[in-house]
Amino acid sequence: MAPNLAIQKRVGFIGLGIMGQHMAGHILAGGYELHVNSRTRAKADALVERGAIWYESPGEVAATSDILITIVGYPVDVESIYLEPGGILDRARPGAVLIDMTTSSPSLAERIAKAASLRGMMALDAPVSGGDIGAREAKLAIMAGGDETAFSQVLPVLRLIGSNVVHMGQAGTGQHTKMANQIAIASTMIAVSESISYATRVGLNPDLTLDVLGTGAASSFLLNGLGRKMVRQDFAPGFFVHHFAKDIGIALNEAKRINLDLPGLALAQKMYERLLANGFGEEGTQALYRIYNRLHWSE
Amino acid sequence: MAPNLAIQKRVGFIGLGIMGQHMAGHILAGGYELHVNSRTRAKADALVERGAIWYESPGEVAATSDILITIVGYPVDVESIYLEPGGILDRARPGAVLIDMTTSSPSLAERIAKAASLRGMMALDAPVSGGDIGAREAKLAIMAGGDETAFSQVLPVLRLIGSNVVHMGQAGTGQHTKMANQIAIASTMIAVSESISYATRVGLNPDLTLDVLGTGAASSFLLNGLGRKMVRQDFAPGFFVHHFAKDIGIALNEAKRINLDLPGLALAQKMYERLLANGFGEEGTQALYRIYNRLHWSE
Repeated sequence: MAPNLAIQKRVGFIGLGIMGQHMAGHILAGGYELHVNSRTRAKADALVERGAIWYESPGEVAATSDILITIVGYPVDVESIYLEPGGILDRARPGAVLIDMTTSSPSLAERIAKAASLRGMMALDAPVSGGDIGAREAKLAIMAGGDETAFSQVLPVLRLIGSNVVHMGQAGTGQHTKMANQIAIASTMIAVSESISYATRVGLNPDLTLDVLGTGAASSFLLNGLGRKMVRQDFAPGFFVHHFAKDIGIALNEAKRINLDLPGLALAQKMYERLLANGFGEEGTQALYRIYNRLHWSE
Repeated sequence: MAPNLAIQKRVGFIGLGIMGQHMAGHILAGGYELHVNSRTRAKADALVERGAIWYESPGEVAATSDILITIVGYPVDVESIYLEPGGILDRARPGAVLIDMTTSSPSLAERIAKAASLRGMMALDAPVSGGDIGAREAKLAIMAGGDETAFSQVLPVLRLIGSNVVHMGQAGTGQHTKMANQIAIASTMIAVSESISYATRVGLNPDLTLDVLGTGAASSFLLNGLGRKMVRQDFAPGFFVHHFAKDIGIALNEAKRINLDLPGLALAQKMYERLLANGFGEEGTQALYRIYNRLHWSE
């Protein structure tokens, strides 16, 4: 009988938020030995019950993994777990493939890839799109940048969590693609909020309006999905306002670096900052609808 | 043999632009006797060759039609052909159903419906979405406002040109729905332009980027359609910049009337006005991409 090659691979997974828990679960279900760490120990409980092994720090997970996946909060978190003394680059084994799936800055991804390469490791930036539902159903879009051989090597693992896994080019291109994705989402969220606010305020049946708009030129994934939630004033988070505000900030910085003026993105930043200021950071991005309708609004 | 009821209905069609020519052609192919008028006689040639009957004025078409469809340029054109002496309301027969499919102002639609009703006619506002391709393939979305009996009566004709024909409510609601549609399109166009401009400028493969974005949360009808045209810098018109600028103007006026602030739509207006000022009114709405990349740009 041929050996099961998959079982030989130890996969480390750092960051067990909404997305990370689902993703790590799929990898465990795929037959890999899973080594985990997260800022909050309790978030690993369900996975540990299913056989995952807990470690006290990112560095310790790195030391025992052939493939290491990270998906944490902010670029500053990525920087700290990868680059600080005792962190991932200090402890990971030569030959390991390190995959950061956090939405983070393209230039940081390039720095990590260079530092990893100097130590005989390979680092990929591979942020995802598709939110909590995509993570739960293993249907994420994964946009990867970095060495193509390393990408091929980890593709079987990435395919356990994503249905559309694409190698975009050199280090940083995964993050750049994710920025292009968030830039498109930002003004589309404004589009959806304004359209539904108008429909509601002039007295149209908003669900019927969505039925019509959702099949034509105005249709979008966000209109058809989050639009319905706006109509019900359901602001429960799929994707947090504070995470999206972070992504918009990264994208605006990158655009500034290349002298590209993005007024729609700048408008979205202002609006999401207002949501944060009004205390709605823990709601879903569809809470943008509040601004137009002054729902529990204190400005 | 049962009489062909369809043939008993004379349908008038006024306005043979890109959209109107396709729409009128489907009605003719559906077996109706078609009476036509347009500002430019030559635009009727192909239809007349296929059996349509030409009249010199909108009023003359109205005088011989059981069902009258109009799709002209601007609200001011709608006002003139319907309300001027010798125009449609002066000449149409009692019992006729008048359908304005121009994207026009909701309040004008209400005025025409009231005036028609006083003369024993029924007027519907039924603007469409789906552009030239939707018109050609008879797959338009049609959003109708006005008397429900009149709507049911003309539904067989509307189904010849639209695949999604919806009665939205009283007079004006068709136009309001179209405004909600254009409001959604306006900021989505900004979303698509900014996303592709960013992708191109940071050196991503833009087609590959669209492949990835087009299956996730950022996906939209416009990203997947007009996005590809932006990448090829193909600005040929499906839907004219000057028509869209008109629609944005109507929507902003309506929003102002109800004290609804729509900053995304206001931004889109500024940008489309800049396109007009730079001489790109006859291009397609995807020409918005020019602004970000200063393509043949003189500002």
